[in-house]
Amino acid sequence: MTSTDDPSTATPTTAVSGVADGWDDPEYQQGVVDLLGVLAYGELSAFERLSDDAAMAPTLTDKASVAAMAVAEFGHFRHLRDRLLELGVDPETAMTPFVAALDAFHESTSPADWLEGLVKAYVGDGFAADFYREIAVHLDPSTRDLVLGVFSDTGHSAFAVEQVRAAIRADPRVAGRLALWGRRLVGEALIQAQYVAAEHDALAGLLIGGPGRPGVDLAQIAEVFNKLTTEHSRRMASLGLAS
Amino acid sequence: MTSTDDPSTATPTTAVSGVADGWDDPEYQQGVVDLLGVLAYGELSAFERLSDDAAMAPTLTDKASVAAMAVAEFGHFRHLRDRLLELGVDPETAMTPFVAALDAFHESTSPADWLEGLVKAYVGDGFAADFYREIAVHLDPSTRDLVLGVFSDTGHSAFAVEQVRAAIRADPRVAGRLALWGRRLVGEALIQAQYVAAEHDALAGLLIGGPGRPGVDLAQIAEVFNKLTTEHSRRMASLGLAS
Repeated sequence: MTSTDDPSTATPTTAVSGVADGWDDPEYQQGVVDLLGVLAYGELSAFERLSDDAAMAPTLTDKASVAAMAVAEFGHFRHLRDRLLELGVDPETAMTPFVAALDAFHESTSPADWLEGLVKAYVGDGFAADFYREIAVHLDPSTRDLVLGVFSDTGHSAFAVEQVRAAIRADPRVAGRLALWGRRLVGEALIQAQYVAAEHDALAGLLIGGPGRPGVDLAQIAEVFNKLTTEHSRRMASLGLAS
Repeated sequence: MTSTDDPSTATPTTAVSGVADGWDDPEYQQGVVDLLGVLAYGELSAFERLSDDAAMAPTLTDKASVAAMAVAEFGHFRHLRDRLLELGVDPETAMTPFVAALDAFHESTSPADWLEGLVKAYVGDGFAADFYREIAVHLDPSTRDLVLGVFSDTGHSAFAVEQVRAAIRADPRVAGRLALWGRRLVGEALIQAQYVAAEHDALAGLLIGGPGRPGVDLAQIAEVFNKLTTEHSRRMASLGLAS
């Protein structure tokens, strides 16, 4: 299995400063290109999704807050795209293999209202950040810094938490609906993540390792999932929701 | 007629450095607050409209280009909002009186496809820029610089021109449809502009002047309209379209 229709065009052609041990492994290079591609399209579609959410904002101030979140995601997209260009990889080629899975995720989790949009932004982005941080552990320092930077908190979490808690105070019945919504988000994310991992060996290899490159074993994978679940529950609780 | 439901809350409460002659005229102050309010909501809704257009982009690269245009509009919104805050005016209060007219404009000119979106972005923003530049002539230097900065070309015009010309080369029949579309955009913009001017005396006063403040006379208004029309025709021609 390969990661793109034409893997030769999605493989770095130039040496990049700051990439360290293991970079000369073509399988690792392909894994990094896949990672940057899926992250870049993830950020571009996060921009679109948050812009759509802005249309549902109850006030102009809220609209501007969500638009600012969208703009921050686009900033992350720019960093990832620039790194792909630096590696001599066409961003469009790197992103295309991941469009179907990410679009499917967003279509299956299209928020019905403002609050569902906020929960998705907070819970979904948090879950994605935890997941990619686990992968980042196994990356060369330069790629790791880029990934960690993309997922550094942009300070928008507080906004979502505040709004959702206020809505629950005003009408406690919304908590049940939003709790189910949070569970559905994670379920759909895991379905698409499994699909992506199965289709992209090099990307999965960043986590599970490869010849001469240590990765995590089965017990550690269970531990990663445990961590992701714990953090997810913590975020749901901070919103005032059962997980 | 007043510009807001409660004009007292939308009047500057603090002195601002850099605002010059005439600033102590409450009618002028109200006009400036109205101008910043209509521009701020204009930029916020331009952000939303361009984000929607990004969904129609034929490639991921095009999607990123239009998303970057949306992000630039949001940057302008931030400048205008910050100035309102500096003046001690609540941005929400300043923007609210203009929501209906701008939303009506966007609803009546919702692009059916990618090309209509590009023509709207280029022709609509160009027309708005020319219009506000005419108003800017009569403003204090600080407000004038802000308005001119908001409408400085962000370099995205070239993108729209290139894409529309390429589409016409590929299928000359689209030129007729897009020419009609351009005419409709300006027609709808003028309808809403007249409505806004009629409802907001202080804003209209920025152009036509007030007691002790020179403005334009009827002959000059005709001249302004002449300029706007000429520039609009020039933009349509640069797209390869009749106006």
